[in-house]
Amino acid sequence: MKDIKTELTQKIVVIGAGNVGTHLAVALQKSGAEVVQVYSRSAESARELGQRLGVPFTHSFGEIHRAADLYVLAVSDSAMLKVLDSGMFNGHFVVHTAGSVDMEVLKNYTRNYGVLYPLQTFSKQRELDFSTIPLLIEANSHENEQRLVRLAKQLTTNVSIVDSEQRLQLHIAAVFACNFVNYMYAVAETLMQRHQLPFRYLQPLILETARKAAESESPTQVQTGPARRHDQNVLEKHRKALEFSPDLQKLYNFVSEKIQTL
Amino acid sequence: MKDIKTELTQKIVVIGAGNVGTHLAVALQKSGAEVVQVYSRSAESARELGQRLGVPFTHSFGEIHRAADLYVLAVSDSAMLKVLDSGMFNGHFVVHTAGSVDMEVLKNYTRNYGVLYPLQTFSKQRELDFSTIPLLIEANSHENEQRLVRLAKQLTTNVSIVDSEQRLQLHIAAVFACNFVNYMYAVAETLMQRHQLPFRYLQPLILETARKAAESESPTQVQTGPARRHDQNVLEKHRKALEFSPDLQKLYNFVSEKIQTL
Repeated sequence: MKDIKTELTQKIVVIGAGNVGTHLAVALQKSGAEVVQVYSRSAESARELGQRLGVPFTHSFGEIHRAADLYVLAVSDSAMLKVLDSGMFNGHFVVHTAGSVDMEVLKNYTRNYGVLYPLQTFSKQRELDFSTIPLLIEANSHENEQRLVRLAKQLTTNVSIVDSEQRLQLHIAAVFACNFVNYMYAVAETLMQRHQLPFRYLQPLILETARKAAESESPTQVQTGPARRHDQNVLEKHRKALEFSPDLQKLYNFVSEKIQTL
Repeated sequence: MKDIKTELTQKIVVIGAGNVGTHLAVALQKSGAEVVQVYSRSAESARELGQRLGVPFTHSFGEIHRAADLYVLAVSDSAMLKVLDSGMFNGHFVVHTAGSVDMEVLKNYTRNYGVLYPLQTFSKQRELDFSTIPLLIEANSHENEQRLVRLAKQLTTNVSIVDSEQRLQLHIAAVFACNFVNYMYAVAETLMQRHQLPFRYLQPLILETARKAAESESPTQVQTGPARRHDQNVLEKHRKALEFSPDLQKLYNFVSEKIQTL
Protein backbone atom coordinates (compact mmCIF):
# COMPACT_ATOMS: atom_id res chain seq x y z
CA MET A 1 0.00 0.00 0.00
CA LYS A 2 2.84 2.37 0.80
CA ASP A 3 4.20 2.10 -2.73
CA ILE A 4 0.82 2.85 -4.27
CA LYS A 5 0.40 5.88 -2.06
CA THR A 6 3.86 7.14 -3.05
CA GLU A 7 2.90 6.62 -6.67
CA LEU A 8 -0.38 8.49 -6.28
CA THR A 9 1.24 11.45 -4.62
CA GLN A 10 4.37 11.75 -6.69
CA LYS A 11 5.53 15.31 -7.25
CA ILE A 12 5.30 16.42 -10.85
CA VAL A 13 6.50 19.58 -12.58
CA VAL A 14 4.69 20.36 -15.84
CA ILE A 15 6.87 22.32 -18.25
CA GLY A 16 4.75 24.08 -20.84
CA ALA A 17 1.32 25.63 -20.43
CA GLY A 18 0.00 25.30 -23.95
CA ASN A 19 -2.86 23.07 -25.07
CA VAL A 20 -1.17 19.77 -24.16
CA GLY A 21 0.48 21.04 -20.96
CA THR A 22 -2.76 22.52 -19.68
CA HIS A 23 -4.86 19.41 -20.30
CA LEU A 24 -2.20 17.05 -18.92
CA ALA A 25 -1.63 19.16 -15.81
CA VAL A 26 -5.36 19.33 -15.10
CA ALA A 27 -5.78 15.58 -15.67
CA LEU A 28 -2.74 14.72 -13.54
CA GLN A 29 -4.00 16.81 -10.65
CA LYS A 30 -7.49 15.30 -10.92
CA SER A 31 -5.99 11.80 -10.90
CA GLY A 32 -4.35 12.36 -7.52
CA ALA A 33 -0.82 13.20 -8.58
CA GLU A 34 0.72 16.29 -6.98
CA VAL A 35 1.51 18.91 -9.59
CA VAL A 36 4.01 20.90 -7.55
CA GLN A 37 4.75 23.57 -10.14
CA VAL A 38 4.07 24.67 -13.70
CA TYR A 39 6.51 26.44 -15.95
CA SER A 40 5.95 28.38 -19.14
CA ARG A 41 8.27 30.77 -20.94
CA SER A 42 5.22 33.03 -21.10
CA ALA A 43 4.64 34.62 -17.71
CA GLU A 44 0.96 34.99 -18.53
CA SER A 45 0.43 31.34 -19.50
CA ALA A 46 2.37 30.19 -16.44
CA ARG A 47 0.20 32.31 -14.14
CA GLU A 48 -3.02 31.27 -15.88
CA LEU A 49 -2.34 27.55 -15.49
CA GLY A 50 -0.80 27.89 -12.01
CA GLN A 51 -3.83 29.78 -10.77
CA ARG A 52 -6.21 27.32 -12.40
CA LEU A 53 -4.53 24.48 -10.51
CA GLY A 54 -3.78 26.48 -7.37
CA VAL A 55 -0.06 25.61 -7.54
CA PRO A 56 3.20 27.59 -7.83
CA PHE A 57 4.15 28.75 -11.31
CA THR A 58 7.19 30.34 -12.91
CA HIS A 59 8.47 31.59 -16.24
CA SER A 60 12.10 31.45 -15.16
CA PHE A 61 14.26 28.36 -15.75
CA GLY A 62 16.24 29.09 -12.62
CA GLU A 63 13.17 28.82 -10.43
CA ILE A 64 12.10 25.38 -11.57
CA HIS A 65 11.58 23.00 -8.66
CA ARG A 66 14.69 20.83 -8.27
CA ALA A 67 13.32 17.80 -6.41
CA ALA A 68 10.28 16.57 -8.32
CA ASP A 69 9.73 12.89 -9.10
CA LEU A 70 8.82 13.58 -12.71
CA TYR A 71 9.26 16.42 -15.18
CA VAL A 72 6.71 16.45 -18.02
CA LEU A 73 7.88 18.41 -21.07
CA ALA A 74 4.84 19.70 -22.93
CA VAL A 75 6.56 22.28 -25.09
CA SER A 76 6.99 22.59 -28.84
CA ASP A 77 9.60 20.34 -30.43
CA SER A 78 11.92 23.29 -31.01
CA ALA A 79 11.57 24.64 -27.46
CA MET A 80 12.26 21.18 -26.04
CA LEU A 81 16.01 21.29 -26.73
CA LYS A 82 16.33 24.75 -25.18
CA VAL A 83 14.68 23.49 -22.01
CA LEU A 84 16.89 20.39 -21.96
CA ASP A 85 20.03 22.44 -22.60
CA SER A 86 19.43 24.26 -19.33
CA GLY A 87 21.02 21.15 -17.82
CA MET A 88 18.75 21.00 -14.81
CA PHE A 89 17.41 17.50 -15.38
CA ASN A 90 20.50 15.41 -14.84
CA GLY A 91 19.43 12.25 -12.99
CA HIS A 92 15.78 13.29 -12.79
CA PHE A 93 12.96 11.42 -14.53
CA VAL A 94 11.99 13.41 -17.63
CA VAL A 95 9.31 12.58 -20.22
CA HIS A 96 8.34 14.41 -23.35
CA THR A 97 4.85 14.38 -24.88
CA ALA A 98 5.61 14.76 -28.61
CA GLY A 99 4.44 12.45 -31.36
CA SER A 100 7.34 12.87 -33.75
CA VAL A 101 10.34 13.23 -31.41
CA ASP A 102 12.46 10.15 -30.79
CA MET A 103 12.74 9.24 -27.12
CA GLU A 104 16.50 9.09 -27.42
CA VAL A 105 16.82 12.89 -27.75
CA LEU A 106 16.49 12.82 -23.95
CA LYS A 107 19.43 10.45 -23.47
CA ASN A 108 22.11 13.12 -23.29
CA TYR A 109 20.30 15.04 -20.58
CA THR A 110 19.39 12.48 -17.93
CA ARG A 111 19.54 8.76 -17.18
CA ASN A 112 15.78 8.36 -16.54
CA TYR A 113 13.57 9.25 -19.43
CA GLY A 114 10.56 8.34 -21.44
CA VAL A 115 7.55 9.52 -23.42
CA LEU A 116 3.94 10.08 -22.46
CA TYR A 117 2.08 10.79 -25.70
CA PRO A 118 -1.64 11.56 -25.51
CA LEU A 119 -3.24 10.81 -28.88
CA GLN A 120 -5.78 13.60 -28.93
CA THR A 121 -6.29 17.16 -30.19
CA PHE A 122 -6.26 19.65 -27.35
CA SER A 123 -7.58 23.18 -27.09
CA LYS A 124 -7.21 25.00 -23.80
CA GLN A 125 -10.77 26.22 -23.85
CA ARG A 126 -12.41 22.85 -24.47
CA GLU A 127 -13.33 20.42 -21.70
CA LEU A 128 -12.18 16.87 -22.43
CA ASP A 129 -12.85 13.52 -20.86
CA PHE A 130 -9.29 12.29 -20.38
CA SER A 131 -10.39 8.84 -19.20
CA THR A 132 -10.69 7.37 -22.73
CA ILE A 133 -7.75 9.12 -24.41
CA PRO A 134 -5.02 6.73 -25.61
CA LEU A 135 -1.83 7.39 -23.66
CA LEU A 136 1.17 5.92 -25.45
CA ILE A 137 4.16 5.12 -23.28
CA GLU A 138 7.83 4.58 -23.93
CA ALA A 139 10.68 4.51 -21.41
CA ASN A 140 14.42 3.84 -21.27
CA SER A 141 14.11 1.02 -18.74
CA HIS A 142 11.57 -1.49 -17.59
CA GLU A 143 11.35 0.24 -14.21
CA ASN A 144 10.68 3.64 -15.74
CA GLU A 145 8.16 2.07 -18.11
CA GLN A 146 6.29 0.60 -15.16
CA ARG A 147 6.32 3.96 -13.39
CA LEU A 148 4.81 5.62 -16.44
CA VAL A 149 2.26 2.88 -16.97
CA ARG A 150 1.06 3.22 -13.37
CA LEU A 151 0.81 6.97 -13.73
CA ALA A 152 -0.96 6.72 -17.11
CA LYS A 153 -3.50 4.25 -15.74
CA GLN A 154 -4.52 6.85 -13.19
CA LEU A 155 -5.38 9.13 -16.11
CA THR A 156 -7.05 6.84 -18.64
CA THR A 157 -8.24 3.31 -19.28
CA ASN A 158 -6.41 3.37 -22.62
CA VAL A 159 -2.64 2.83 -22.04
CA SER A 160 -0.26 1.20 -24.53
CA ILE A 161 3.48 0.74 -24.93
CA VAL A 162 4.59 2.09 -28.30
CA ASP A 163 8.15 2.67 -29.54
CA SER A 164 9.41 5.88 -31.16
CA GLU A 165 8.99 4.62 -34.73
CA GLN A 166 5.41 3.49 -34.13
CA ARG A 167 4.64 6.77 -32.38
CA LEU A 168 5.90 8.71 -35.41
CA GLN A 169 3.64 6.64 -37.67
CA LEU A 170 0.72 7.19 -35.31
CA HIS A 171 1.40 10.92 -35.37
CA ILE A 172 1.34 10.97 -39.18
CA ALA A 173 -1.91 8.98 -39.17
CA ALA A 174 -3.28 11.47 -36.66
CA VAL A 175 -2.31 14.38 -38.92
CA PHE A 176 -4.49 12.85 -41.67
CA ALA A 177 -7.35 11.87 -39.33
CA CYS A 178 -7.41 15.16 -37.43
CA ASN A 179 -5.52 18.09 -38.98
CA PHE A 180 -6.23 17.21 -42.61
CA VAL A 181 -9.81 16.29 -41.77
CA ASN A 182 -10.21 19.69 -40.17
CA TYR A 183 -8.78 21.31 -43.28
CA MET A 184 -11.50 19.56 -45.33
CA TYR A 185 -14.06 21.04 -42.92
CA ALA A 186 -12.41 24.44 -43.46
CA VAL A 187 -12.73 24.07 -47.24
CA ALA A 188 -16.41 23.26 -46.78
CA GLU A 189 -16.75 26.35 -44.60
CA THR A 190 -15.17 28.49 -47.33
CA LEU A 191 -17.45 27.07 -50.02
CA MET A 192 -20.54 27.69 -47.91
CA GLN A 193 -19.52 31.23 -46.99
CA ARG A 194 -19.17 32.04 -50.70
CA HIS A 195 -22.86 31.23 -51.06
CA GLN A 196 -24.17 32.64 -47.80
CA LEU A 197 -24.94 29.19 -46.45
CA PRO A 198 -24.54 28.62 -42.70
CA PHE A 199 -21.84 26.13 -41.70
CA ARG A 200 -24.20 24.59 -39.13
CA TYR A 201 -26.05 22.82 -41.97
CA LEU A 202 -23.06 20.45 -42.03
CA GLN A 203 -22.99 19.66 -38.31
CA PRO A 204 -25.08 16.45 -38.37
CA LEU A 205 -23.16 15.23 -41.43
CA ILE A 206 -19.76 15.87 -39.84
CA LEU A 207 -20.69 14.09 -36.61
CA GLU A 208 -22.27 11.10 -38.35
CA THR A 209 -19.30 10.73 -40.73
CA ALA A 210 -16.92 10.60 -37.76
CA ARG A 211 -19.09 8.18 -35.77
CA LYS A 212 -19.55 5.89 -38.77
CA ALA A 213 -15.80 5.64 -39.45
CA ALA A 214 -14.89 5.31 -35.76
CA GLU A 215 -17.47 2.60 -35.09
CA SER A 216 -16.78 0.67 -38.29
CA GLU A 217 -13.05 0.55 -37.43
CA SER A 218 -12.49 0.57 -41.20
CA PRO A 219 -13.23 3.85 -42.97
CA THR A 220 -12.16 2.28 -46.26
CA GLN A 221 -15.15 -0.05 -45.97
CA VAL A 222 -17.66 2.74 -45.38
CA GLN A 223 -16.47 5.21 -48.04
CA THR A 224 -19.40 6.82 -49.87
CA GLY A 225 -19.97 9.69 -52.28
CA PRO A 226 -19.93 10.42 -56.02
CA ALA A 227 -16.28 9.37 -56.47
CA ARG A 228 -16.91 6.05 -54.74
CA ARG A 229 -19.99 5.50 -56.96
CA HIS A 230 -17.89 6.52 -60.00
CA ASP A 231 -20.65 9.02 -60.79
CA GLN A 232 -18.85 10.96 -63.54
CA ASN A 233 -21.81 13.29 -64.08
CA VAL A 234 -21.67 14.64 -60.57
CA LEU A 235 -17.87 14.73 -60.52
CA GLU A 236 -17.95 16.85 -63.67
CA LYS A 237 -20.51 19.28 -62.22
CA HIS A 238 -18.40 19.68 -59.09
CA ARG A 239 -15.19 20.23 -61.05
CA LYS A 240 -16.92 22.93 -63.04
CA ALA A 241 -18.29 24.62 -59.92
CA LEU A 242 -14.76 24.69 -58.44
CA GLU A 243 -13.28 26.50 -61.44
CA PHE A 244 -13.03 29.68 -59.36
CA SER A 245 -10.18 28.05 -57.39
CA PRO A 246 -7.57 26.02 -59.29
CA ASP A 247 -6.17 24.75 -55.98
CA LEU A 248 -9.50 23.43 -54.72
CA GLN A 249 -10.21 21.94 -58.12
CA LYS A 250 -6.83 20.21 -58.03
CA LEU A 251 -7.53 18.87 -54.53
CA TYR A 252 -11.00 17.74 -55.61
CA ASN A 253 -9.59 15.86 -58.59
CA PHE A 254 -6.74 14.31 -56.66
CA VAL A 255 -8.83 12.97 -53.78
CA SER A 256 -11.67 11.88 -56.08
CA GLU A 257 -9.20 9.88 -58.16
CA LYS A 258 -7.74 8.26 -55.07
CA ILE A 259 -11.22 7.35 -53.78
CA GLN A 260 -12.03 5.72 -57.12
CA THR A 261 -9.07 3.39 -56.64
CA LEU A 262 -9.95 2.42 -53.04
CA MET B 1 -57.97 19.87 -38.69
CA LYS B 2 -59.15 17.99 -41.74
CA ASP B 3 -56.33 19.43 -43.83
CA ILE B 4 -53.70 18.43 -41.30
CA LYS B 5 -55.06 14.91 -41.17
CA THR B 6 -54.99 14.68 -44.98
CA GLU B 7 -51.39 15.90 -44.87
CA LEU B 8 -50.40 13.37 -42.24
CA THR B 9 -51.86 10.47 -44.12
CA GLN B 10 -50.83 11.33 -47.65
CA LYS B 11 -49.95 8.37 -49.82
CA ILE B 12 -46.31 8.22 -50.81
CA VAL B 13 -44.46 5.92 -53.21
CA VAL B 14 -40.73 5.67 -52.57
CA ILE B 15 -38.77 4.86 -55.72
CA GLY B 16 -35.36 3.46 -54.86
CA ALA B 17 -34.39 1.24 -51.97
CA GLY B 18 -30.75 2.18 -51.57
CA ASN B 19 -29.27 4.03 -48.60
CA VAL B 20 -31.28 7.25 -49.08
CA GLY B 21 -34.51 5.52 -50.13
CA THR B 22 -34.41 3.17 -47.18
CA HIS B 23 -33.80 5.86 -44.57
CA LEU B 24 -36.35 8.25 -46.09
CA ALA B 25 -39.02 5.55 -46.36
CA VAL B 26 -38.50 4.48 -42.75
CA ALA B 27 -38.55 8.08 -41.52
CA LEU B 28 -41.66 8.94 -43.59
CA GLN B 29 -43.55 5.98 -42.21
CA LYS B 30 -42.49 6.79 -38.64
CA SER B 31 -43.66 10.37 -39.11
CA GLY B 32 -47.20 9.27 -39.90
CA ALA B 33 -47.16 9.46 -43.69
CA GLU B 34 -48.52 6.43 -45.53
CA VAL B 35 -45.83 4.79 -47.62
CA VAL B 36 -48.12 2.85 -49.95
CA GLN B 37 -45.41 1.15 -52.00
CA VAL B 38 -41.68 0.91 -52.56
CA TYR B 39 -40.00 0.30 -55.89
CA SER B 40 -36.48 -0.81 -56.68
CA ARG B 41 -35.07 -2.16 -59.93
CA SER B 42 -33.52 -4.83 -57.72
CA ALA B 43 -36.21 -7.34 -56.72
CA GLU B 44 -34.24 -8.20 -53.62
CA SER B 45 -33.86 -4.58 -52.42
CA ALA B 46 -37.55 -3.92 -53.13
CA ARG B 47 -38.60 -6.94 -51.08
CA GLU B 48 -36.18 -6.14 -48.26
CA LEU B 49 -37.49 -2.59 -47.81
CA GLY B 50 -41.13 -3.53 -48.45
CA GLN B 51 -40.98 -6.23 -45.79
CA ARG B 52 -39.20 -3.94 -43.36
CA LEU B 53 -42.03 -1.42 -43.70
CA GLY B 54 -44.79 -3.99 -44.13
CA VAL B 55 -45.95 -2.38 -47.39
CA PRO B 56 -46.31 -3.54 -51.02
CA PHE B 57 -43.16 -3.56 -53.12
CA THR B 58 -42.29 -4.06 -56.76
CA HIS B 59 -39.35 -4.09 -59.12
CA SER B 60 -41.50 -3.54 -62.19
CA PHE B 61 -42.23 -0.05 -63.55
CA GLY B 62 -45.61 -1.18 -64.79
CA GLU B 63 -46.75 -2.09 -61.28
CA ILE B 64 -46.00 1.25 -59.67
CA HIS B 65 -49.03 2.63 -57.83
CA ARG B 66 -50.79 5.20 -60.05
CA ALA B 67 -52.67 7.32 -57.52
CA ALA B 68 -50.18 8.38 -54.85
CA ASP B 69 -50.01 11.95 -53.56
CA LEU B 70 -46.23 12.05 -53.83
CA TYR B 71 -43.51 10.10 -55.61
CA VAL B 72 -40.08 10.32 -53.98
CA LEU B 73 -37.22 9.50 -56.35
CA ALA B 74 -34.31 8.17 -54.34
CA VAL B 75 -32.32 6.63 -57.16
CA SER B 76 -28.89 7.40 -58.61
CA ASP B 77 -28.66 10.45 -60.86
CA SER B 78 -28.26 8.26 -63.94
CA ALA B 79 -31.22 5.99 -63.06
CA MET B 80 -33.43 9.04 -62.44
CA LEU B 81 -33.92 9.83 -66.12
CA LYS B 82 -34.79 6.24 -66.92
CA VAL B 83 -37.47 6.26 -64.25
CA LEU B 84 -38.80 9.61 -65.47
CA ASP B 85 -38.79 8.46 -69.11
CA SER B 86 -41.29 5.77 -68.19
CA GLY B 87 -43.80 8.61 -68.49
CA MET B 88 -45.92 7.55 -65.56
CA PHE B 89 -45.65 10.74 -63.54
CA ASN B 90 -47.48 13.19 -65.72
CA GLY B 91 -49.49 15.46 -63.43
CA HIS B 92 -48.37 13.72 -60.24
CA PHE B 93 -46.24 15.38 -57.58
CA VAL B 94 -42.66 14.12 -57.97
CA VAL B 95 -39.59 15.05 -55.95
CA HIS B 96 -36.00 13.96 -56.30
CA THR B 97 -33.51 13.71 -53.45
CA ALA B 98 -30.21 14.47 -55.20
CA GLY B 99 -27.71 17.15 -54.21
CA SER B 100 -26.32 17.96 -57.63
CA VAL B 101 -29.34 17.58 -59.93
CA ASP B 102 -31.19 20.74 -60.93
CA MET B 103 -34.87 20.69 -60.01
CA GLU B 104 -35.79 21.65 -63.57
CA VAL B 105 -34.84 18.22 -64.94
CA LEU B 106 -38.30 17.21 -63.65
CA LYS B 107 -40.10 19.90 -65.64
CA ASN B 108 -40.60 17.85 -68.79
CA TYR B 109 -42.19 14.96 -66.92
CA THR B 110 -44.86 16.52 -64.71
CA ARG B 111 -46.31 19.88 -63.68
CA ASN B 112 -45.85 19.34 -59.93
CA TYR B 113 -42.29 18.82 -58.84
CA GLY B 114 -39.66 19.62 -56.31
CA VAL B 115 -36.65 18.45 -54.32
CA LEU B 116 -36.32 16.96 -50.85
CA TYR B 117 -32.59 16.76 -50.14
CA PRO B 118 -31.45 15.27 -46.84
CA LEU B 119 -27.97 16.55 -45.99
CA GLN B 120 -26.58 13.42 -44.38
CA THR B 121 -24.56 10.30 -45.17
CA PHE B 122 -26.73 7.20 -45.13
CA SER B 123 -25.88 3.54 -44.76
CA LYS B 124 -28.72 1.04 -44.73
CA GLN B 125 -27.33 -0.83 -41.78
CA ARG B 126 -26.87 2.22 -39.51
CA GLU B 127 -29.63 3.59 -37.31
CA LEU B 128 -30.01 7.37 -37.64
CA ASP B 129 -31.91 9.99 -35.73
CA PHE B 130 -33.71 11.72 -38.61
CA SER B 131 -35.13 14.46 -36.38
CA THR B 132 -32.06 16.73 -36.60
CA ILE B 133 -31.05 16.08 -40.22
CA PRO B 134 -31.25 19.19 -42.43
CA LEU B 135 -33.93 18.68 -45.10
CA LEU B 136 -33.48 21.13 -47.96
CA ILE B 137 -36.57 21.90 -49.96
CA GLU B 138 -37.22 23.30 -53.41
CA ALA B 139 -40.46 23.25 -55.40
CA ASN B 140 -41.87 24.58 -58.68
CA SER B 141 -44.69 26.53 -57.00
CA HIS B 142 -45.47 28.11 -53.68
CA GLU B 143 -48.20 25.56 -53.09
CA ASN B 144 -45.91 22.60 -53.71
CA GLU B 145 -43.23 24.22 -51.57
CA GLN B 146 -45.68 24.47 -48.70
CA ARG B 147 -46.70 20.82 -49.13
CA LEU B 148 -43.06 19.76 -48.95
CA VAL B 149 -42.31 22.00 -45.99
CA ARG B 150 -45.23 20.50 -44.06
CA LEU B 151 -44.09 16.99 -44.91
CA ALA B 152 -40.43 17.77 -44.06
CA LYS B 153 -41.40 19.26 -40.69
CA GLN B 154 -42.95 15.93 -39.77
CA LEU B 155 -39.52 14.36 -40.32
CA THR B 156 -37.09 16.87 -38.81
CA THR B 157 -36.80 20.15 -36.93
CA ASN B 158 -34.26 21.33 -39.50
CA VAL B 159 -36.08 22.42 -42.70
CA SER B 160 -34.81 25.07 -45.14
CA ILE B 161 -35.69 26.35 -48.60
CA VAL B 162 -32.63 26.16 -50.85
CA ASP B 163 -32.47 26.63 -54.62
CA SER B 164 -30.72 24.26 -57.05
CA GLU B 165 -27.53 26.32 -57.25
CA GLN B 166 -27.19 26.54 -53.46
CA ARG B 167 -27.95 22.82 -53.17
CA LEU B 168 -25.13 22.03 -55.61
CA GLN B 169 -22.75 24.15 -53.55
CA LEU B 170 -23.91 22.44 -50.37
CA HIS B 171 -23.33 19.06 -51.99
CA ILE B 172 -19.76 20.01 -52.92
CA ALA B 173 -19.15 21.25 -49.37
CA ALA B 174 -20.58 17.96 -48.11
CA VAL B 175 -18.20 16.00 -50.35
CA PHE B 176 -15.28 17.74 -48.64
CA ALA B 177 -16.76 17.49 -45.12
CA CYS B 178 -17.86 13.87 -45.44
CA ASN B 179 -16.43 11.87 -48.38
CA PHE B 180 -13.00 13.54 -48.40
CA VAL B 181 -12.86 13.48 -44.61
CA ASN B 182 -13.56 9.75 -44.73
CA TYR B 183 -10.79 9.34 -47.28
CA MET B 184 -8.38 11.00 -44.82
CA TYR B 185 -9.53 8.47 -42.20
CA ALA B 186 -8.88 5.72 -44.78
CA VAL B 187 -5.34 7.00 -45.34
CA ALA B 188 -4.79 6.95 -41.58
CA GLU B 189 -6.10 3.38 -41.52
CA THR B 190 -3.62 2.38 -44.26
CA LEU B 191 -0.70 3.98 -42.44
CA MET B 192 -1.58 2.24 -39.20
CA GLN B 193 -2.06 -1.14 -40.84
CA ARG B 194 1.43 -0.86 -42.31
CA HIS B 195 2.78 -0.73 -38.76
CA GLN B 196 0.42 -3.19 -37.09
CA LEU B 197 -1.27 -0.43 -35.12
CA PRO B 198 -5.00 -0.80 -34.39
CA PHE B 199 -7.25 1.81 -35.99
CA ARG B 200 -9.23 2.12 -32.75
CA TYR B 201 -6.36 4.20 -31.27
CA LEU B 202 -7.68 7.02 -33.46
CA GLN B 203 -11.32 6.82 -32.37
CA PRO B 204 -11.24 9.44 -29.59
CA LEU B 205 -9.24 11.78 -31.83
CA ILE B 206 -11.65 11.41 -34.76
CA LEU B 207 -14.71 12.06 -32.61
CA GLU B 208 -13.18 15.04 -30.79
CA THR B 209 -11.97 16.60 -34.05
CA ALA B 210 -15.49 16.41 -35.48
CA ARG B 211 -17.15 17.74 -32.32
CA LYS B 212 -14.66 20.60 -32.07
CA ALA B 213 -15.24 21.75 -35.64
CA ALA B 214 -19.01 21.28 -35.46
CA GLU B 215 -19.36 23.14 -32.18
CA SER B 216 -16.98 25.94 -33.12
CA GLU B 217 -18.95 26.58 -36.33
CA SER B 218 -15.63 27.65 -37.83
CA PRO B 219 -13.10 24.88 -38.44
CA THR B 220 -10.69 27.44 -39.87
CA GLN B 221 -10.48 28.98 -36.40
CA VAL B 222 -9.71 25.68 -34.65
CA GLN B 223 -7.13 24.31 -37.09
CA THR B 224 -4.19 22.69 -35.24
CA GLY B 225 -1.21 20.49 -36.08
CA PRO B 226 2.40 20.79 -37.29
CA ALA B 227 1.48 22.64 -40.52
CA ARG B 228 -0.59 25.19 -38.62
CA ARG B 229 2.31 25.68 -36.17
CA HIS B 230 4.70 25.92 -39.17
CA ASP B 231 6.77 23.23 -37.46
CA GLN B 232 9.17 22.48 -40.34
CA ASN B 233 11.06 19.86 -38.33
CA VAL B 234 8.00 17.68 -37.93
CA LEU B 235 6.79 18.32 -41.49
CA GLU B 236 10.16 17.13 -42.78
CA LYS B 237 10.09 13.96 -40.66
CA HIS B 238 6.59 13.15 -41.93
CA ARG B 239 7.53 13.77 -45.57
CA LYS B 240 10.44 11.42 -45.17
CA ALA B 241 8.29 8.74 -43.55
CA LEU B 242 5.85 8.97 -46.48
CA GLU B 243 8.53 8.34 -49.09
CA PHE B 244 7.14 4.83 -49.64
CA SER B 245 4.10 6.42 -51.35
CA PRO B 246 4.67 9.34 -53.74
CA ASP B 247 0.89 9.93 -53.85
CA LEU B 248 0.49 10.21 -50.09
CA GLN B 249 3.59 12.37 -49.90
CA LYS B 250 2.11 14.65 -52.57
CA LEU B 251 -1.17 14.85 -50.67
CA TYR B 252 0.68 15.53 -47.41
CA ASN B 253 2.65 18.36 -48.99
CA PHE B 254 -0.34 19.88 -50.74
CA VAL B 255 -2.63 19.97 -47.71
CA SER B 256 0.18 21.05 -45.37
CA GLU B 257 0.97 23.97 -47.67
CA LYS B 258 -2.69 24.98 -47.80
CA ILE B 259 -2.99 24.82 -44.00
CA GLN B 260 0.05 27.08 -43.67
CA THR B 261 -1.77 29.74 -45.67
CA LEU B 262 -5.04 29.52 -43.68
